[in-house]
Amino acid sequence: MADLKSTFLDVYSILKSDLLQDPSFEFTHESRQWLERMLDYNVRGGKLNRGLSVVDSYKLLKQGQDLTDKESFLACALGWCIEWLQAYFLVLDDIMDNSVTRRGQPCWFRQPKVGMIAINDGILLRNHIHRILKKHFKGMPYYVDLVDLFNEVEFQTACGQMIDLITTFDGEKDLSKYSLQIHRRIVQYKTAYYSFYLPVACALLMAGENLESHTDVKDVLIDMGIYFQVQDDYLDCFADPETLGKIGTDIEDFKCSWLVVKALERCSEEQTKILYENYGKIEPSNVAKVKALYKEIDLEAVFMEYERESYEKLTKLIEAHQSKEIQAVLKSFLGKIYKRQK
Amino acid sequence: MADLKSTFLDVYSILKSDLLQDPSFEFTHESRQWLERMLDYNVRGGKLNRGLSVVDSYKLLKQGQDLTDKESFLACALGWCIEWLQAYFLVLDDIMDNSVTRRGQPCWFRQPKVGMIAINDGILLRNHIHRILKKHFKGMPYYVDLVDLFNEVEFQTACGQMIDLITTFDGEKDLSKYSLQIHRRIVQYKTAYYSFYLPVACALLMAGENLESHTDVKDVLIDMGIYFQVQDDYLDCFADPETLGKIGTDIEDFKCSWLVVKALERCSEEQTKILYENYGKIEPSNVAKVKALYKEIDLEAVFMEYERESYEKLTKLIEAHQSKEIQAVLKSFLGKIYKRQK
Repeated sequence: MADLKSTFLDVYSILKSDLLQDPSFEFTHESRQWLERMLDYNVRGGKLNRGLSVVDSYKLLKQGQDLTDKESFLACALGWCIEWLQAYFLVLDDIMDNSVTRRGQPCWFRQPKVGMIAINDGILLRNHIHRILKKHFKGMPYYVDLVDLFNEVEFQTACGQMIDLITTFDGEKDLSKYSLQIHRRIVQYKTAYYSFYLPVACALLMAGENLESHTDVKDVLIDMGIYFQVQDDYLDCFADPETLGKIGTDIEDFKCSWLVVKALERCSEEQTKILYENYGKIEPSNVAKVKALYKEIDLEAVFMEYERESYEKLTKLIEAHQSKEIQAVLKSFLGKIYKRQK
Repeated sequence: MADLKSTFLDVYSILKSDLLQDPSFEFTHESRQWLERMLDYNVRGGKLNRGLSVVDSYKLLKQGQDLTDKESFLACALGWCIEWLQAYFLVLDDIMDNSVTRRGQPCWFRQPKVGMIAINDGILLRNHIHRILKKHFKGMPYYVDLVDLFNEVEFQTACGQMIDLITTFDGEKDLSKYSLQIHRRIVQYKTAYYSFYLPVACALLMAGENLESHTDVKDVLIDMGIYFQVQDDYLDCFADPETLGKIGTDIEDFKCSWLVVKALERCSEEQTKILYENYGKIEPSNVAKVKALYKEIDLEAVFMEYERESYEKLTKLIEAHQSKEIQAVLKSFLGKIYKRQK
């Protein structure tokens, strides 16, 4: 595993160096320096889970055979494309959400001299994906499918972000807009496609598979992505901030969290009134009232039950799949997230 | 011409309606409404020069033959892709430049309830291009080249924007960074590729041509794009705001304009001092001093001479081209911009 990560990081250095020498643009010294700093700050610094999972998945599809150097490089390069995509979303999301920190350091747009230039940096990150795909995959039989895949997933993510932004910020803060259906829609589009479906779809394409014949795999991964985000919503409120590495602010931010949706389902009239009066307010006393209410209606137990059911349902779906290799890929994803604490 | 424009606008309605029904996303009523308003505000409202020039160019390549309905639709659709690209750049540029108005109305991000959601709207506009290409061009032999073309041109534009932003905002306002070479680099990448090369490249691909064998056409169009931007820089300072439709602020904004670069070349030591002291300041008295200096060193005459030389050089290059159809395309572009007043 440490080995895989170091191979993966070596590929980052190669891809970065390609981009800094890209013949389609005449860099100035200053712009090359800027770009290198921007890439190291935003792309290299993540947990790399999504990127590494492309390599893991591809290996499992190849039944654990050793990869050739070329295969290993290409799988890592696709993994990095997802990391680039993630960096692009995060740089822009942080501006839209007016966030302060990301991965334990200030958000990129808060760095001195950066500011709104971060918007263009986000655009550059997005464009780098196609530079990488074109340079390393152009001759491959699956090149068009790969390009279409990245475009489609980016589109779906932006659409998810759109309903999230519109639902959260449109007009007055009105909890009656929030339901399990709207929560599912935001989460499916904004998170599940790019975090769960995309890595496996990349591995499938590299293995010569046609994505059209794997819609069942997509469905399982989307369900898993939704489960993952429900965990995220749960941890935002209930995890130890020390373990989680950040302090959740979903309540303050009036987020359409799974918790508030479940609370709305289970509250008495009086409790609903408390929720309406306190959700989406920045003052600690309001937040405390919401948290107390969550405890009162035992959302922790509701979540535990959801987690158990999701695991069971996903396991059944996975075991029904005809391919052992694909089962292994899906189980590996599920194993990584089941009962996670951060 | 009025006819072409009305056909072109009909195609907009079709493309918009496709996007509002896109099966890759489950719209809510609110998000569909938001999207429609956003598209009408940002995409439909331009001068449409770039988009219409795809249709014009394709007709000229077909020696003025009447287009079939299908051909006409596809040429218009590609034209609209360029308009979508332009809308995407403008929505985001206006945020980065903190602009107030665009096309005679408030910038999109200044509309009530929009704000930073405009960043995601920009992203959506960019993604729509690939939705349009995939829906209408996926079966075409030139599909991959088209997708690669849009990606490459977007990348070059973002790189141009990067050096523009870094040069203009990095550190102290220091005019010694500005030269004809850096001006050319900003303009070539930020404007010329997408405004001049892209429409013709789209028409060439539709006509079955290979872009690799037309690098000479690209070179002429890039030169024309640079000439176009020099005109823009000139008009920003010297045109009647009434005719131009906006009030230029390049001097206040410390822009790397062709005028300031030429001024730096021609100023005495004393005049240079005046320029350094007054360029990039918002006060009308500073701006007036810069303008007076421009008059003193007769930049108007320098521009007239540049315009004459550029026209002559471009005409020669065009007439040396072996294809009459391509000559016609290039002459049409040059004819539209030569001695323009707005």
